[in-house]
Amino acid sequence: MSATLVIGRYSEADRAALASAFDPLFLTSPADIAGLDAGLRAGITALAFKGHAPLDGAAMDLLPNLGLIANFGVGYDAIDVAAASARGIRVTNTPEVLNDDVADLAVALLLAQGRELIAASDWARSGRWKSEGEYRLNRKVSGGRAGIVGLGRIGREIADRLAAFKMEIHYFARSEKDTPGWTFHADPVSLARAVDFLIVALVGGAETERFVSAEVIAALGPRGVIVNISRGTTVDEAALLDALEQGRLAGAGLDVFLNEPGIDPRFYALSNVVIQPHQGSGTVETRAAMGRLQRDNIDAFRAGRPLLTPVN
Amino acid sequence: MSATLVIGRYSEADRAALASAFDPLFLTSPADIAGLDAGLRAGITALAFKGHAPLDGAAMDLLPNLGLIANFGVGYDAIDVAAASARGIRVTNTPEVLNDDVADLAVALLLAQGRELIAASDWARSGRWKSEGEYRLNRKVSGGRAGIVGLGRIGREIADRLAAFKMEIHYFARSEKDTPGWTFHADPVSLARAVDFLIVALVGGAETERFVSAEVIAALGPRGVIVNISRGTTVDEAALLDALEQGRLAGAGLDVFLNEPGIDPRFYALSNVVIQPHQGSGTVETRAAMGRLQRDNIDAFRAGRPLLTPVN
Repeated sequence: MSATLVIGRYSEADRAALASAFDPLFLTSPADIAGLDAGLRAGITALAFKGHAPLDGAAMDLLPNLGLIANFGVGYDAIDVAAASARGIRVTNTPEVLNDDVADLAVALLLAQGRELIAASDWARSGRWKSEGEYRLNRKVSGGRAGIVGLGRIGREIADRLAAFKMEIHYFARSEKDTPGWTFHADPVSLARAVDFLIVALVGGAETERFVSAEVIAALGPRGVIVNISRGTTVDEAALLDALEQGRLAGAGLDVFLNEPGIDPRFYALSNVVIQPHQGSGTVETRAAMGRLQRDNIDAFRAGRPLLTPVN
Repeated sequence: MSATLVIGRYSEADRAALASAFDPLFLTSPADIAGLDAGLRAGITALAFKGHAPLDGAAMDLLPNLGLIANFGVGYDAIDVAAASARGIRVTNTPEVLNDDVADLAVALLLAQGRELIAASDWARSGRWKSEGEYRLNRKVSGGRAGIVGLGRIGREIADRLAAFKMEIHYFARSEKDTPGWTFHADPVSLARAVDFLIVALVGGAETERFVSAEVIAALGPRGVIVNISRGTTVDEAALLDALEQGRLAGAGLDVFLNEPGIDPRFYALSNVVIQPHQGSGTVETRAAMGRLQRDNIDAFRAGRPLLTPVN
């Protein structure tokens, strides 16, 4: 009888590795747990979790002997960690291994928005370059003023990259950090006032909901650009859409949205927004490393060794 | 009578600034010079030049009192500088002010190619994200091995940026440079063998024609990606197209082509190529700085002061 339950959609390689290591039960979503019979559920001691569907205390109660939830991904806002802790369930995630990819995508979004990469590509590929001449001038990125909202591991990777573009680096964090000449702002409105490019690298969850508020967006102003690679929840999306539609914000580069993948169709009508399908960590190399770390945490749990990357 | 001739297509702002400063004659192309009457031609002492149409000795001979050709752009391969020198004509260009933009676009092309930014954007915008799920995994860029072909001013700006992505930096140059731990290669085949991402930052002209040869492309191999922000002439374009079509090269990110803007239609059929319409320096900020520098060179010439950025 399987002691491991796997929930979520995995690559072929990860699915094969999970099957080979743990001979687990596979489910698509937490909602499917209730469909397992009580004997199977009672046998489950470890859960490999992936995805954004909520995993709450009620779902955990269906697995009375669960001791570990090993999340695939650094963000674990889908998991009610307080509920897990209350039940003596440990939670792990996969930090660090995806920092580079997410930071790369943040820089790619910033450059693509400023330099209008997608529209310029369309211009060339459609033949308009030949028939109508040069693509219109766009906007310089190097040397600009960048504000990082959340100087955690990923935020710092982004800042390190942008510093090489000679950008003036400002940041918001809960406390001032040891940085090479970057400017700390204790509140996000002050940060937004000081910069043109605002890059959101917060953790998700209730505490950061709509942290980039209508007031922050207004402080950024009509030359402002917002890049978000964190979670759709961290930005007041209605305020963002209003500002983009009304020209009160220059543009955005977004990898994350509310209600993914069924995102607000108002985004599709905006030519000043670069849209990505939440692929921040979506490289072959990084997803393989994330899968390994998820399985290594399960291995450690089974062997009674310290968990590699615990979150509670 | 105008002493200044302006050739090429300029922004409204540059055209107005040229008109106000020099009250010049405006032409579209060097081919139009012959249409001016001899008296007008004899009055011209300075030429503000922009574009890629060849400006050769025969054209210069139509302007017997020409003393200066002030090029708009860092690359002056359209101008026969030897012919100018032989006639006592000074040539200036607009270096430095565009380095950042061109380097930014090189990084944008590299990231967009590796992370499949345009196809992923299409995936989200077309609704396939919602109907078919996650976009396919793509390729990590950070931490990879980058080779810069030509470590001049722009090449160094590119290398400085890529170093912040933790890339291993290799370069070809005519001689070894003082660099922070980057690896010098005396020949481009050795460089291509050592890296996955090859970024071409050579000057144009006859000396660098097809410098990135079929042999270099073969040495780069099937995981290789070529980014070119220099001139279409620097790469053996037929060999590049063959390799891309046959899977002997992973992809390319190209801002420059032979026969721009009427580029080879084989490029349009390739999904692994990010195409840009030669917009490396195409920002409002940088084009304004280039225009100022072009006009400042003409001012210096008229006032008998040293030229700011002479090339001969």
